[in-house]
Amino acid sequence: MATDIVWHQHEVTKQTRSQQLGQQPRVIWLTGLSGSGKSTLANLLEKKLVDNKRYTYLLDGDNVRHGLCGDLGFADKDRVENIRRVSEVARLFVDAGSIVITAFISPFQTDRDYCRKLLDDNEFVEVFVDTPLEVCEQRDPKGLYKKARNGEIKHFTGIDSTYEAPVNPEVHLEYQDESAEDTAERLYHLLVDKGLV
Amino acid sequence: MATDIVWHQHEVTKQTRSQQLGQQPRVIWLTGLSGSGKSTLANLLEKKLVDNKRYTYLLDGDNVRHGLCGDLGFADKDRVENIRRVSEVARLFVDAGSIVITAFISPFQTDRDYCRKLLDDNEFVEVFVDTPLEVCEQRDPKGLYKKARNGEIKHFTGIDSTYEAPVNPEVHLEYQDESAEDTAERLYHLLVDKGLV
Repeated sequence: MATDIVWHQHEVTKQTRSQQLGQQPRVIWLTGLSGSGKSTLANLLEKKLVDNKRYTYLLDGDNVRHGLCGDLGFADKDRVENIRRVSEVARLFVDAGSIVITAFISPFQTDRDYCRKLLDDNEFVEVFVDTPLEVCEQRDPKGLYKKARNGEIKHFTGIDSTYEAPVNPEVHLEYQDESAEDTAERLYHLLVDKGLV
Repeated sequence: MATDIVWHQHEVTKQTRSQQLGQQPRVIWLTGLSGSGKSTLANLLEKKLVDNKRYTYLLDGDNVRHGLCGDLGFADKDRVENIRRVSEVARLFVDAGSIVITAFISPFQTDRDYCRKLLDDNEFVEVFVDTPLEVCEQRDPKGLYKKARNGEIKHFTGIDSTYEAPVNPEVHLEYQDESAEDTAERLYHLLVDKGLV
């Protein structure tokens, strides 16, 4: 659709900003079922990174949906467009030198791969927050599983819409009985040990 | 469209990041005709800000249109949606503590006001890059005016699509004969003098 456009060479580049901030930009992409604990873990992880002098930003499914994606619903094609926009925004933040944490169900592998392909090697870190469906449904922090089971919500991931577990994530984080704090701590150290943050 | 969503309270806030970066976040919104020099001035301004230890990001019409807005054309409704998405992204960057410079024609006052209303008081700085149409058309860096006059491009701002000059911009920057470097310098000092950067 968009024609007659060129990618301007900016004077201030990703490299400039990485140096300015003293870090390598990344996307730490948390994926998992509703109620798996993505947002909670993302928040705790961000706090820990900032305490360690990292410059971060958290893109959150619930938050982005008020603004940038406020025009989208929850049908499959809207979910795809939601994740596409989030991926493009994450790329801008990476270009800005930031460590971006995202917390979206992002049920489809192709959509997560879309973001990966937008970025340079090693900039995309896929984290599978692996909480069993039964546990998520038991937690049900927003009462959404109940509504989905009653048929009040359609296209609910894990109930009547597919969740494709990551094939080869950088981090496979099982999260069931442990506390959120301990799990976030574990995630943080996994990322540090892999030299990713 | 989007229901059952809540705005999560993040532990790391705009205030945290402002302190971390040692600056007040803003959007410096450059508006003006095609060929008025927005992108060039935005680039030079960003360089100057970064040289002065500011943390910035530049959102550029041409660049954003490859990614986030790659699905949009140039009809009025697509232009409105383009500016809406850019505004929402600018808001996220402000929330991240950044000084965001935007360089878009953004011909409609209501769209620029949309971004202003998303932000807190004094966070939106409207800069009218005021270059007369004749001068823009003479510069014609991308040969677009020629195409528009030939009818090869439709809906071209200033030719067969309206440009609404800002009613009450924070900065009215006339830019005609002066060099880009001197004009960017002048803009930078105007912003400094007003305590905006």
